[in-house]
Amino acid sequence: MKGKALTPDCIQQRGFALLSQEGFPLKKIRVFVAGASGKMGQEVIRTLVKEDDLILVGASDTRQQGMDVGFVVGLPRMGLDISGPFDVESLRTFQADVLVDFTNPQSVLKNAKTAILAGVVPVIGTTGLDEAELEEIRTLAVKESVGAFIAPNFSIGALLMMRFAREAAKYFPHVDILELHHDQKLDAPSGTAIKTAELISEVRPPMVQGHPNEYEKIPGARGADLGGIHIHSVRLPGLIAHQEVLFGGLGQALTIRHDAYTRETYMPGIMLAIRKAADLTELVVGLENFLD
Amino acid sequence: MKGKALTPDCIQQRGFALLSQEGFPLKKIRVFVAGASGKMGQEVIRTLVKEDDLILVGASDTRQQGMDVGFVVGLPRMGLDISGPFDVESLRTFQADVLVDFTNPQSVLKNAKTAILAGVVPVIGTTGLDEAELEEIRTLAVKESVGAFIAPNFSIGALLMMRFAREAAKYFPHVDILELHHDQKLDAPSGTAIKTAELISEVRPPMVQGHPNEYEKIPGARGADLGGIHIHSVRLPGLIAHQEVLFGGLGQALTIRHDAYTRETYMPGIMLAIRKAADLTELVVGLENFLD
Amino acid sequence: MKGKALTPDCIQQRGFALLSQEGFPLKKIRVFVAGASGKMGQEVIRTLVKEDDLILVGASDTRQQGMDVGFVVGLPRMGLDISGPFDVESLRTFQADVLVDFTNPQSVLKNAKTAILAGVVPVIGTTGLDEAELEEIRTLAVKESVGAFIAPNFSIGALLMMRFAREAAKYFPHVDILELHHDQKLDAPSGTAIKTAELISEVRPPMVQGHPNEYEKIPGARGADLGGIHIHSVRLPGLIAHQEVLFGGLGQALTIRHDAYTRETYMPGIMLAIRKAADLTELVVGLENFLD
Amino acid sequence: MKGKALTPDCIQQRGFALLSQEGFPLKKIRVFVAGASGKMGQEVIRTLVKEDDLILVGASDTRQQGMDVGFVVGLPRMGLDISGPFDVESLRTFQADVLVDFTNPQSVLKNAKTAILAGVVPVIGTTGLDEAELEEIRTLAVKESVGAFIAPNFSIGALLMMRFAREAAKYFPHVDILELHHDQKLDAPSGTAIKTAELISEVRPPMVQGHPNEYEKIPGARGADLGGIHIHSVRLPGLIAHQEVLFGGLGQALTIRHDAYTRETYMPGIMLAIRKAADLTELVVGLENFLD
Repeated sequence: MKGKALTPDCIQQRGFALLSQEGFPLKKIRVFVAGASGKMGQEVIRTLVKEDDLILVGASDTRQQGMDVGFVVGLPRMGLDISGPFDVESLRTFQADVLVDFTNPQSVLKNAKTAILAGVVPVIGTTGLDEAELEEIRTLAVKESVGAFIAPNFSIGALLMMRFAREAAKYFPHVDILELHHDQKLDAPSGTAIKTAELISEVRPPMVQGHPNEYEKIPGARGADLGGIHIHSVRLPGLIAHQEVLFGGLGQALTIRHDAYTRETYMPGIMLAIRKAADLTELVVGLENFLD
Repeated sequence: MKGKALTPDCIQQRGFALLSQEGFPLKKIRVFVAGASGKMGQEVIRTLVKEDDLILVGASDTRQQGMDVGFVVGLPRMGLDISGPFDVESLRTFQADVLVDFTNPQSVLKNAKTAILAGVVPVIGTTGLDEAELEEIRTLAVKESVGAFIAPNFSIGALLMMRFAREAAKYFPHVDILELHHDQKLDAPSGTAIKTAELISEVRPPMVQGHPNEYEKIPGARGADLGGIHIHSVRLPGLIAHQEVLFGGLGQALTIRHDAYTRETYMPGIMLAIRKAADLTELVVGLENFLD
Repeated sequence: MKGKALTPDCIQQRGFALLSQEGFPLKKIRVFVAGASGKMGQEVIRTLVKEDDLILVGASDTRQQGMDVGFVVGLPRMGLDISGPFDVESLRTFQADVLVDFTNPQSVLKNAKTAILAGVVPVIGTTGLDEAELEEIRTLAVKESVGAFIAPNFSIGALLMMRFAREAAKYFPHVDILELHHDQKLDAPSGTAIKTAELISEVRPPMVQGHPNEYEKIPGARGADLGGIHIHSVRLPGLIAHQEVLFGGLGQALTIRHDAYTRETYMPGIMLAIRKAADLTELVVGLENFLD
Repeated sequence: MKGKALTPDCIQQRGFALLSQEGFPLKKIRVFVAGASGKMGQEVIRTLVKEDDLILVGASDTRQQGMDVGFVVGLPRMGLDISGPFDVESLRTFQADVLVDFTNPQSVLKNAKTAILAGVVPVIGTTGLDEAELEEIRTLAVKESVGAFIAPNFSIGALLMMRFAREAAKYFPHVDILELHHDQKLDAPSGTAIKTAELISEVRPPMVQGHPNEYEKIPGARGADLGGIHIHSVRLPGLIAHQEVLFGGLGQALTIRHDAYTRETYMPGIMLAIRKAADLTELVVGLENFLD
């Protein structure tokens, strides 16, 4: 395994402010990024180096090994190289608190287990783990008394939209969901729209919306029906990822909308997860657990 | 037939400003409203008495005959009573230029023909005329050299939305239509949404939108398909009548939205129709003919 | 004081379903409406007669005394007349649980005190009470161990919007408020917009939003500044009462919007207040206290 | 000047489809891009190589000279290098029909004149030319009988929004403009918002909107006033470039909205300009001249 350990000098060069008298960072959370050369990995690195209380101590990928991380992510030289595949022993040398994983479905389980065995809390953004694999991580985490975190959605804005929608449905049981995505998306409705409808269904019973005698002059006009909630999927070039939850009541409407414009959308959620996960001692699933 | 002819005195009492030296209105368009006691008829009367260049000279209905029009529509006394059914001769006594018809499908054809024969231009808002009946009116109008006007939609805002949508589609062929109505509406999609899609189809060829391999996890998610245009119908209590036409292109979206909140929505279009129809000498169908 | 007491027969005629074997309503909340002939009073009556657990037992106004309530509010005959001014003794004869007050600033304090002294919980929608008058009600309520309720805003939708905005601001401190009203509104920004900004300010410190070097080419472009939150007031004919709270964060936006279309907007909140207030034993201010 | 001339072989390698029997492109418009290494230049190149009727024949920049254009813009090797500064003679060797200029205010005038003298139509996206410089280009174009084109805004969507807004104002004179941008934008209102208000002012007289007695409880609430049109500028992180033109009329609202999400927004307009400009023989200013 390649990749140099950080010296106080090097840390100072990289512009981190809160150092102890000896030049070591004071209570910063030490982060290792697996999948550093990917789009998400790069964005995570660009974001976390701007945070005062986080410090990047290692970055691995199967691509661009040995290259300076700064060069890889489009920032000035960092004095830290992309390292290759890691095992428990080599990971330990980084003294990381948290390992952020945006690798691929083939690597994520092994990485998570390696991290836990090395005493590092994995924060997993990679998708593809099935229930049995989640259970394996859960069990290992308990056995080692090391935390672990995984979330299907790191967008705080989308999570708040879903939370508010669930709350609003207690008072406004009539609701339609509109989700709008770029026209390269294959499935409709979106996972977020389905999840939103499921959350709403927790607080209101299934009901028929619309007039009992309503009819479709053209099939599909009234959208997909999930427990009586109608979901409408717009697909257009140019769009990114948007959702509107529309509630109607006597003489009024209440609308909650989320627009995701870029990959940066997920960064505040990932930073929050890093900070909260550092203190975990078991597996937690879902970013909503970290919102007040 | 009841209903007094307007005297100059009476006109003056009703507060019309532009009078000739003899006390007669100067070049005002003289309007007779059929169906005056109905919701639309009342609204038409309330609106037109505020217009300087229009004057109400008669108002008929099967209901509330002999009552003062002001009382019926919730305004101060007008000195003009609701009259009953009219024929060519009795209609002539009002010397109306235009007859606005918001009666019912059973009366509208007879009223229109009576008006034309009396030399009065019918402006028809009542629905229910079929093609043969329209043709009958068209022929009679030509024969008598009297104009006639009918429109399925008197909302100028909705017409502009449709016009703009048609123009935009030349540059943005990818389009979804979202229409939102109160939940007592029976049919979906709305007539306006279908009309909008048809207008767009005049300027862009049928095309498949979305990814060729897209699929619906829940049927109906992608809405109704009309020539490749997806139409989504939201039905919620509280809503009135709203439509959004969404265009997507490279890195951008263009949206045209119309919200109809009350019956007043239709008044500017009806006033425009009255003013333009007064000069017609044949049947014209559709308010778009009167927009620049 | 006029107004007949309700007999079981009469109640049955009025179509209430949940009767005891003796023909008396079972645990219905008995409601007296003061200001019954006003727009809000009428709407309250039309709404509550459709609720299974509420029953209208009296309705007073200075106007239309002695007329049947049904006639006044545009419903079938109710067998209950509009009564006039009431005192403690006459109010008691109605055996009301709750008195809903939509009268006027001159009557509201006296009505509230009369209600409390008669053992009836006042639910006050009339505006115009100052702090001293509120205190007077509070003290009397404690002394008599009778509840009282007053709210500046009975729109559940608007309250949820404000609540969600306050929650969202914890995660998205950058926020602009846009409020849109009909062009007869005199003050800008609206009270609801100011209240929303104040609630947000409880959870985020005052901060400068926008670029520190930003400048207005035309004064006012950036709106009103309340603790760093920019508020924009649109005034247009046709609009009713709308507000959007816009949050921006890394690569995303979160929007919460409320549209009030008609006076009915306030009815669910008033019904909720009636139900919750019936059990109060002190003054409560603000409908948010009744939302979970 | 560096940069190889395209051979038929090379063209074929680059995957262009419409070739004559001799292997030369058939009636393709030959495009030279100045400022090829900049963000806009790169995007222009990535876009035009996907168009069947356009062909990239040269690309210059002060940066990355001698590097393959494909490498510079993130595409496969093109067999065409970035060339340096050009003069009339060297530019002629590319046999370009159109020169697209996204350089900088210091180079744009010289580039435009060089192009015209070489018989190449400049399509200018670079800002910073003043009236005198425009006049210089206009005069030279006439003298040489060569076209030239410049536009302050290449977004077809934004242009349509402005056009529709101008049309709608004929029927809906009451209008507010809302523009929303990222919080790094310095000036408010945006140039597009001001331009929109100016266009609207061409068709409606200056008027006071809102109630004559309206007042601001907090200064700026009603926005910037331009000829009676109120403009509101929202600045939030995460946003890109958005504008809403809101029209209100009796009982209704009409809204036209444009969202620009990425730099790609401008590409359809630039491609349109290239195609239309190729046939010009004088200076044309503004993309609206190329919209039907």
